Amino acid sequence: MMWQATVLTLYPELFPGPLGASILGRSAGEGLWGLDTVNIRDFSDNKYGSVDAPPAGGGAGLVMRADILAAAIDSVPRNDRPILCLSPRGKPFTQARARELSHGPGLIALCGRFEGVDERIFEARDVEEVSIGDFVLAGGEIAAMALIEACVRLIPGVLGSASSLGEESFEGGLLEYPQYARPREFEGRAIPDVLLSGDHQKIAEWRRKKAEEITRTRRPDLAERFSSDGPIRRGKNKEPKR
Amino acid sequence: MMWQATVLTLYPELFPGPLGASILGRSAGEGLWGLDTVNIRDFSDNKYGSVDAPPAGGGAGLVMRADILAAAIDSVPRNDRPILCLSPRGKPFTQARARELSHGPGLIALCGRFEGVDERIFEARDVEEVSIGDFVLAGGEIAAMALIEACVRLIPGVLGSASSLGEESFEGGLLEYPQYARPREFEGRAIPDVLLSGDHQKIAEWRRKKAEEITRTRRPDLAERFSSDGPIRRGKNKEPKR
Repeated sequence: MMWQATVLTLYPELFPGPLGASILGRSAGEGLWGLDTVNIRDFSDNKYGSVDAPPAGGGAGLVMRADILAAAIDSVPRNDRPILCLSPRGKPFTQARARELSHGPGLIALCGRFEGVDERIFEARDVEEVSIGDFVLAGGEIAAMALIEACVRLIPGVLGSASSLGEESFEGGLLEYPQYARPREFEGRAIPDVLLSGDHQKIAEWRRKKAEEITRTRRPDLAERFSSDGPIRRGKNKEPKR
Repeated sequence: MMWQATVLTLYPELFPGPLGASILGRSAGEGLWGLDTVNIRDFSDNKYGSVDAPPAGGGAGLVMRADILAAAIDSVPRNDRPILCLSPRGKPFTQARARELSHGPGLIALCGRFEGVDERIFEARDVEEVSIGDFVLAGGEIAAMALIEACVRLIPGVLGSASSLGEESFEGGLLEYPQYARPREFEGRAIPDVLLSGDHQKIAEWRRKKAEEITRTRRPDLAERFSSDGPIRRGKNKEPKR
């Protein structure tokens, strides 16, 4: 069965949006994955179409109601897919999670707006909060797009060549080494000699060293994890063409 | 002068996309911020419109050329705005950075595609790599949207009430407390009594305790930072209505 993302949102017209461009759009056209949306507003219980209410206990803004979200969720065939609610309070989303999700049947994304969603929905419908980063957005829609794009590009066949996945950031636990292309000299800056040497082993060593350097300098947190469990992760995540 | 985001991309048709919806779209219409795009392909030096070349030293995919990116960047009035290249190798983007950027003149976002961009552009044009999270996307476009949305909603006047900013995640160094709204009982799950008590001090204490609990359980990294510099940050970031 096709990998399927279902997005529950108040703004279904924003989808597929950027998820319809380039290789992602093409691969959806080829039937490698699918996207559908549910308008949460369709499950409003009043003539105004409202889906929110003031927060219990007071405070600014409005909270999306649990009963309306539950009705929206219950309208979607679950097919063993996890329901992920995009929220800065969630568990940080990572490349490892994207890979895991890309191997599954797909996902259901719940996009909050306003001040968030009623806490009771998480337990009542087994909804997991995930966060794409330590910042706050106006709603979950752009975060859902990021999450879906990260997963879909890992579905076999979506990117042309499996080898372009093997050397990117986080695969193997390191940030990616620097890339160069022609022109050989740009405003007095030359491509490092080693990359033009034709010596594949030297090039691989240089790239490895640079990737470790960049990771250590920019992301000591990743570097630390890499040095403790790096070799194990490298073995497990090995790409066919690495 | 108006806060302005300029996006350099191969897919200008994706913008404003989700950035045109809801409060962000409305506030752009009111002149509180602006968005424009530059099509990097317009700066190609060949009849095929290509902007990339094979990586020096070999490897899969294609690298966006420094000379073409430089021409695209040089076409944009800089107006003291930082140039941010969305990349998983970058410095993690945070709410503090969003706040800082929202106080400035705007930003220029460079969206990579393919295997990334020629390393020399970063130094040659003072381009800073920033990352929205530890995962890999098909291109920088969705990441740029996330970054811009996080900044724009902090521009004074974009959200209706300043108080809805004061209590959200990361303001004060904690994740947000749980929210509830009617119905009072949902599938046997009741709103916690304290929130219905009308006792504002008790409610504030409960929320504070819950926010600390959630932060400690879900994000020990944030909790640690909070306990060491929390009170200082709270003082500095205090919102008028907290």
